[in-house]
Amino acid sequence: MKILISNDDGIDSPGIAALTKELKKIGDVTVIAPRTEQSAVGHAITMKFPLRITEYYKNGDFFGYAIDGTPADCIKIGIRNILKEKPDIVISGINCGSNTAINIIYSGTVSAAREAAIMDVPAIAVSVTSHEPNHYEYAAKFSADLTKLVVQHKLTTGTLLNVNVPDLPDEQIKGVLLTQQGKSKWDDIYEERLDPYGKKYYWLTGNLMQVDNNLITDQHAVRENYVSVTPIHFDLTDYETYDKMKHWHLENMHKQKS
Amino acid sequence: MKILISNDDGIDSPGIAALTKELKKIGDVTVIAPRTEQSAVGHAITMKFPLRITEYYKNGDFFGYAIDGTPADCIKIGIRNILKEKPDIVISGINCGSNTAINIIYSGTVSAAREAAIMDVPAIAVSVTSHEPNHYEYAAKFSADLTKLVVQHKLTTGTLLNVNVPDLPDEQIKGVLLTQQGKSKWDDIYEERLDPYGKKYYWLTGNLMQVDNNLITDQHAVRENYVSVTPIHFDLTDYETYDKMKHWHLENMHKQKS
Repeated sequence: MKILISNDDGIDSPGIAALTKELKKIGDVTVIAPRTEQSAVGHAITMKFPLRITEYYKNGDFFGYAIDGTPADCIKIGIRNILKEKPDIVISGINCGSNTAINIIYSGTVSAAREAAIMDVPAIAVSVTSHEPNHYEYAAKFSADLTKLVVQHKLTTGTLLNVNVPDLPDEQIKGVLLTQQGKSKWDDIYEERLDPYGKKYYWLTGNLMQVDNNLITDQHAVRENYVSVTPIHFDLTDYETYDKMKHWHLENMHKQKS
Repeated sequence: MKILISNDDGIDSPGIAALTKELKKIGDVTVIAPRTEQSAVGHAITMKFPLRITEYYKNGDFFGYAIDGTPADCIKIGIRNILKEKPDIVISGINCGSNTAINIIYSGTVSAAREAAIMDVPAIAVSVTSHEPNHYEYAAKFSADLTKLVVQHKLTTGTLLNVNVPDLPDEQIKGVLLTQQGKSKWDDIYEERLDPYGKKYYWLTGNLMQVDNNLITDQHAVRENYVSVTPIHFDLTDYETYDKMKHWHLENMHKQKS
């Protein structure tokens, strides 16, 4: 099995090392990841600048390829110009910090897996809930187990799995739940400060407004110490509103003009 | 009516000027847009650097606020720290180049409108199909008309409208269609080149693989010279796969371990 591993925390992050170590036990792993941290880049791709591919060594051993771009760039150029063929699966992570509810939209980790899904390659995004995780091992082993399940059951083309794992010792994890994207969102705050020259600047901060209280959601599942697995896709059409909007009679908008 | 206008091509793009001119006829407009072009940034937000707000003048007149960040940043800081209250609607555009099918995922124009929808503000993203458009006026007037319809019918919270307008004279536009996101995707190519020092670098290019051939899709509608209006949202859950995955029995994954 050919496995491509990427992330958004950068190729020297401990999360990608933990994932790689575990996935090497079940397949032929290539690591292609951003040279530097790329958190919250969303699904950005690099078009106005060229990319470079650098071989990356860790403790003297070849570890993989570092790309001076975004997570989505890594998957695109990795499959097109490094692997030169589609891998059997792409795994992105292990991210430091959960990617649940609204955070899925901003996540670079998820966007790497989504780019794979766009290229018709099955994909998993994996995150642990802490920004300074102590427990990558469970998440890494879980990723390997889930990879086997994905190969066995096959994922619908265009679908990826978004996995969030509590940063806890194994025995404190209550179980694994199939979930949906939660509705919790950020209450953003831009802190106003003055630079040394007296000019204002603003830092983004804020609080996540917890509105999810059902284990059917990713957000509540991880808060309750479950591993959360959410199937997501990139068809953004809001079909419910689409049906409602038939009564708007948009076709009349052009006739009114002429 | 309080209207916030943004874009991803930057505050000095002609598309935002055309939109602003038309929307001023129906409401109280504030322009808050990226200082520089931010195409293909997806839904990136700026967390590792502070943002600055600069007043921007055009032909000697105050035009709006320039933010040295992404389109999503503009909406967040614009509503939180400039307007200090929610506008009645956010309009993002007019983008140079269509945002149909897979391009919705990469689009900065759409992400500004999506950030508004995340903040429970109705929103419209507007693009014209050419990268060097000759016909912004129809798209600008259409945006004003659609704004009135959105106010009249109300959009579901969390839904935005993604509008694509052919870059044609009015009389060549065939009509307006309610559409769904198409399935056309990019066949990416990374062109390999050598820098003056003999090192390789790679430019992203490619061809859009046209698989949409039904007027129900945004992609085919604009190719056939119709204005396309697609309701989209940010719930990425793949409910069909969710139902199928109940048979994967993920709950057994944890028990196997202990």
